Amino acid sequence: MIKVGIVGGTGYTGVELLRLLVAHPNVEIALITSRAESGREVADLFPSLRGHINLCFTDPDDDALAACDAVFFATPHNVAMRSVPALIAAGTRVIDLSADFRIRDAALWERWYGEVHACPELLDDAVYGLPERNRKQIRSARLLACPGCYPTAVQLGFMPLLEAGLVDSTSLIANAVSGVSGAGRQAKIDNLLSEASDSFKAYAVGGHRHLPEIEQGLSAMSSEAVALTFVPHLAPMIRGIHATLYASLNEAGRAADLQKVFEDCYAQEPFVDVLPAGQYPQTRSVRGANSCQLAITVPQDRNTVVVTAVEDNLVKGAAGQAIQCMNLMFDQVETLGIAQPGLLP
Amino acid sequence: MIKVGIVGGTGYTGVELLRLLVAHPNVEIALITSRAESGREVADLFPSLRGHINLCFTDPDDDALAACDAVFFATPHNVAMRSVPALIAAGTRVIDLSADFRIRDAALWERWYGEVHACPELLDDAVYGLPERNRKQIRSARLLACPGCYPTAVQLGFMPLLEAGLVDSTSLIANAVSGVSGAGRQAKIDNLLSEASDSFKAYAVGGHRHLPEIEQGLSAMSSEAVALTFVPHLAPMIRGIHATLYASLNEAGRAADLQKVFEDCYAQEPFVDVLPAGQYPQTRSVRGANSCQLAITVPQDRNTVVVTAVEDNLVKGAAGQAIQCMNLMFDQVETLGIAQPGLLP
Amino acid sequence: MIKVGIVGGTGYTGVELLRLLVAHPNVEIALITSRAESGREVADLFPSLRGHINLCFTDPDDDALAACDAVFFATPHNVAMRSVPALIAAGTRVIDLSADFRIRDAALWERWYGEVHACPELLDDAVYGLPERNRKQIRSARLLACPGCYPTAVQLGFMPLLEAGLVDSTSLIANAVSGVSGAGRQAKIDNLLSEASDSFKAYAVGGHRHLPEIEQGLSAMSSEAVALTFVPHLAPMIRGIHATLYASLNEAGRAADLQKVFEDCYAQEPFVDVLPAGQYPQTRSVRGANSCQLAITVPQDRNTVVVTAVEDNLVKGAAGQAIQCMNLMFDQVETLGIAQPGLLP
Amino acid sequence: MIKVGIVGGTGYTGVELLRLLVAHPNVEIALITSRAESGREVADLFPSLRGHINLCFTDPDDDALAACDAVFFATPHNVAMRSVPALIAAGTRVIDLSADFRIRDAALWERWYGEVHACPELLDDAVYGLPERNRKQIRSARLLACPGCYPTAVQLGFMPLLEAGLVDSTSLIANAVSGVSGAGRQAKIDNLLSEASDSFKAYAVGGHRHLPEIEQGLSAMSSEAVALTFVPHLAPMIRGIHATLYASLNEAGRAADLQKVFEDCYAQEPFVDVLPAGQYPQTRSVRGANSCQLAITVPQDRNTVVVTAVEDNLVKGAAGQAIQCMNLMFDQVETLGIAQPGLLP
Repeated sequence: MIKVGIVGGTGYTGVELLRLLVAHPNVEIALITSRAESGREVADLFPSLRGHINLCFTDPDDDALAACDAVFFATPHNVAMRSVPALIAAGTRVIDLSADFRIRDAALWERWYGEVHACPELLDDAVYGLPERNRKQIRSARLLACPGCYPTAVQLGFMPLLEAGLVDSTSLIANAVSGVSGAGRQAKIDNLLSEASDSFKAYAVGGHRHLPEIEQGLSAMSSEAVALTFVPHLAPMIRGIHATLYASLNEAGRAADLQKVFEDCYAQEPFVDVLPAGQYPQTRSVRGANSCQLAITVPQDRNTVVVTAVEDNLVKGAAGQAIQCMNLMFDQVETLGIAQPGLLP
Repeated sequence: MIKVGIVGGTGYTGVELLRLLVAHPNVEIALITSRAESGREVADLFPSLRGHINLCFTDPDDDALAACDAVFFATPHNVAMRSVPALIAAGTRVIDLSADFRIRDAALWERWYGEVHACPELLDDAVYGLPERNRKQIRSARLLACPGCYPTAVQLGFMPLLEAGLVDSTSLIANAVSGVSGAGRQAKIDNLLSEASDSFKAYAVGGHRHLPEIEQGLSAMSSEAVALTFVPHLAPMIRGIHATLYASLNEAGRAADLQKVFEDCYAQEPFVDVLPAGQYPQTRSVRGANSCQLAITVPQDRNTVVVTAVEDNLVKGAAGQAIQCMNLMFDQVETLGIAQPGLLP
Repeated sequence: MIKVGIVGGTGYTGVELLRLLVAHPNVEIALITSRAESGREVADLFPSLRGHINLCFTDPDDDALAACDAVFFATPHNVAMRSVPALIAAGTRVIDLSADFRIRDAALWERWYGEVHACPELLDDAVYGLPERNRKQIRSARLLACPGCYPTAVQLGFMPLLEAGLVDSTSLIANAVSGVSGAGRQAKIDNLLSEASDSFKAYAVGGHRHLPEIEQGLSAMSSEAVALTFVPHLAPMIRGIHATLYASLNEAGRAADLQKVFEDCYAQEPFVDVLPAGQYPQTRSVRGANSCQLAITVPQDRNTVVVTAVEDNLVKGAAGQAIQCMNLMFDQVETLGIAQPGLLP
Repeated sequence: MIKVGIVGGTGYTGVELLRLLVAHPNVEIALITSRAESGREVADLFPSLRGHINLCFTDPDDDALAACDAVFFATPHNVAMRSVPALIAAGTRVIDLSADFRIRDAALWERWYGEVHACPELLDDAVYGLPERNRKQIRSARLLACPGCYPTAVQLGFMPLLEAGLVDSTSLIANAVSGVSGAGRQAKIDNLLSEASDSFKAYAVGGHRHLPEIEQGLSAMSSEAVALTFVPHLAPMIRGIHATLYASLNEAGRAADLQKVFEDCYAQEPFVDVLPAGQYPQTRSVRGANSCQLAITVPQDRNTVVVTAVEDNLVKGAAGQAIQCMNLMFDQVETLGIAQPGLLP
């Protein structure tokens, strides 16, 4: 059994980790910390877990965490980086779902997050947890930086095109849409049902923190410089990311069988699913599932390729991918505990 | 392995059976029939099942169905009763999710459903699939009549009160609310998102087909005559039943510790969960889960008891309960394949 | 022109007052106060009002308010009662949408609201703003107490039955459902889209503050004592109240033509609409409209009558009804500015 | 009074025309035709109109229509063009909300709509009803072709950039999102609440019928050739269009004050509203209103300009714009009857 601790279990990423981990056959949840809810039964806060977990939230306890095989951080940024060095030193492997270790360049991180990084010396050690790119390094990672929800969909969507050099990498566009759970379980007027329901909007058009993370990832896939215009939007739904990606095909791209390029790229991937030509993915098809579904189209056979990609922001975009990485790190079958189909309707 | 067939797999009950059965360790799905979609891949109609099932819908085939250990009917009423006699004769056990065998009185059934019953001689054999009432008979059932979605919630909510004789059984009220998936996967203008979203309404106030089924069930629990006012409503959500039940406490009821009555009644039940006093259930807590959560309140300490009950209409109200019964019929652990927690948020 | 001030214009009742008043031909909005948003343009907070209003929120200013013909309080309880005495003394007429003057018995008010009432001596002066009951008194009111959203629907639904003495008034049940805007524009986790969407729940089953208000109103309609069981619920929609009312018919009730009783009772009412027999109201039919639609049914021709009633909680349940009362108080055509049809779909 | 007839009043565009026209002070609705609902009261089909209209749907009647001053066609394509020649000949002015006269090139129309055009000789007479481009011609139009919902938002968003020659017109991208009412009031499984709620998808990525209409409009604004990639999406909401437009700035564009370009372009327009820099529009801000709100951003000060635009697809995207054109055609104040603010929340 893998003994795991969860730091910050009161958010949506936290409860999603719990939903998946309580059903994982080889995991034992040792503790869940939360300052705000310390002492409260987990199932009292999340009634969907009644009968599935008997723990109470506890105050953060470094020793108890260090006694775990793996610790998940489901915290806002600027939390994990304060505890990670000690945990790593104690031999505990860390799976950080926050942004603290996603960006390799400390100065860039500090510019976007407005904080001084607490342990820049660990950034080189951190492995970026996108198994479709970094499976081998993930297996041996001590410190795993889970990708953001938008970056997962956008990178998986552009990856076959960039790796094969089929598009102009300097004029990429990612028009992405998220369900409201992406904003977290926080009391903000903007995310009230009365505000966010039956409406649609763009936000952070001038610049979103996921931009440098995505550009870093895309650059690693491309032999050319990368520039991305990334516009996130909020849709009136609970879960789901839908990315619509636009790129200009170069000569090689115009000549290629793009459907085949994608199918070949992901043929061995358990959690990336290229739809047959002519079908488009819907977020509901992957609700609750650790899956990214993709489609490729060249509208009117012109020069712009459009990739549409969906995932559940809390699963393949967060908790599910984190467990996928955990499985790799602890020599489990990669799909263990995260293979269930989505909830449709 | 239990070899199962599904008749009518293109509706919401059908896809929910598939979602649960593909993950059931001891079930093999042998065939899924649909006249309308014959030849089409199941995963093409339901993309959430891509990678989980490789079957195509087939035309109904009596021999292939008779070769199964169990056949699920996820059909409208008036279908199962035409095929059941032959299947039963062939030794196949039938789990009917439709209304054909729910009502023991053929004349009453015919009055509400406007059809002549095709095999009234089997009504006495049919076991009503509410495990909390009929677990023993379910184990040996050849023909199982799964309860309707409303009847499950309403009966589980009234059961402790009626069995203990604590309320006036002649003035019961069930104010019930359903998500739109209860209306099935049918092209009706009333159920369009543009019609049903952001709105709420009662329907069938004068009389709903679940009324005689519920009254039959409640009568079996009560030593007195039963009369129920049942008003169903439609809420703008996909899944979920919420029942608010009202009853007048009699002298014994006013003296009783109702919270304890409910907790004792369901102490051994894996799928009925009595909430602590002061908490009220929400449908989202059981989204995707085979669970009914209940709360008991006596407002203002007057004479009316209010029970609120929630379930997922497609799980504990349909497919999940059917599999719970299948587990009992085939000597499986009762919770096998249907123990996962709900999807929250 | 009626010169009006609005205290507390940043909530949903406030913005709804503004939406209606900017289009009212005989109203001039003189000021809108808000401590929290003082100095901010109203249309900056509510972009739907861009081009319709040029005011900024201002700090509360007693003199400026006293210079108005009418002041609307769209505040939480415990605010209006601190300012009302001075305004009344200055000759300004007050239309209070909060709970401060709804209950005539100060002790009862204090029990439910947990505060000492600041001006109990004004309670006798306050006129309860339900035009269908109190039209004459409203015309001359100096201090108008607007009914709550639930109380409006529940009272309009029971009124014809109680006034005609057709039901047992001691066992009334009101099962009521509200959209989330009823909870106000406040940052609470429970009302996030991710929490409240795709779900349904009861709340405050043990006792809700609208209970004493409703019982007071129903008692005034009935020659007998009144007791009500009132259970409010939250539905995943923005606007709308749906009330399902249950009462036991007495001998006179069983003999009566209930459809006609309702139609006669409301024949002259511009904003209460009795649907033809067999139709049931939907909240969307009155979205944005100052209308209450009603239907009457006796299920299975037994002894329980079921009334279903809908309104928009922010219009007939709040701002629209307040303007209806203002029209009466200032000798305007009662329907002026609030006659537009609902927004469907 | 302008005497109007409506052909095809049973869809969402039809009921929206009715909602607005019943409140228009200078319009008399003479008849509403519908083969399917002939003889039924309009307010029976649309209960939101109870008390606002007393007409029944009637069978189409050419003489009765020809007796009107104006006839609105709220029909699918391929209907209006069969009746228009006779109406025009009779001196009745036609306002067609369908696609029949939007595209000036009959061959292009026939390619996208798969029909032979019934009166190509009238295409030159038809005036495209986008007042912000064609106000003068609209005033004298006999036959008005109302723009589609997507084309309105996309053209208004690109117009200032193209007219001023600030972007590369050959690589335009319009990523557009619609509420489900855009699909019409038709019984299709895909648009059921259970299918479309809590989900998001692209559709018609390979080519949508609004593409040639938009390209025709954009070409008229630009001195260069135009090529557009247009990807429509479906969001889980009733109303609303959100367009996110991408264009590469040319040298002039990089030098320009884009905020000012937009503000100047629309300074005199009553129904186009450029938001202050840093704000982004939401569809809910214009729910029920005849308004298009726009924002301009250059993310990271690079070379791609992003315009976000919202409208209510049924108002500025259909019925409201049609009435705006009617006002122009009949010498009314342009804003008459369509000036009300949106319904928020």
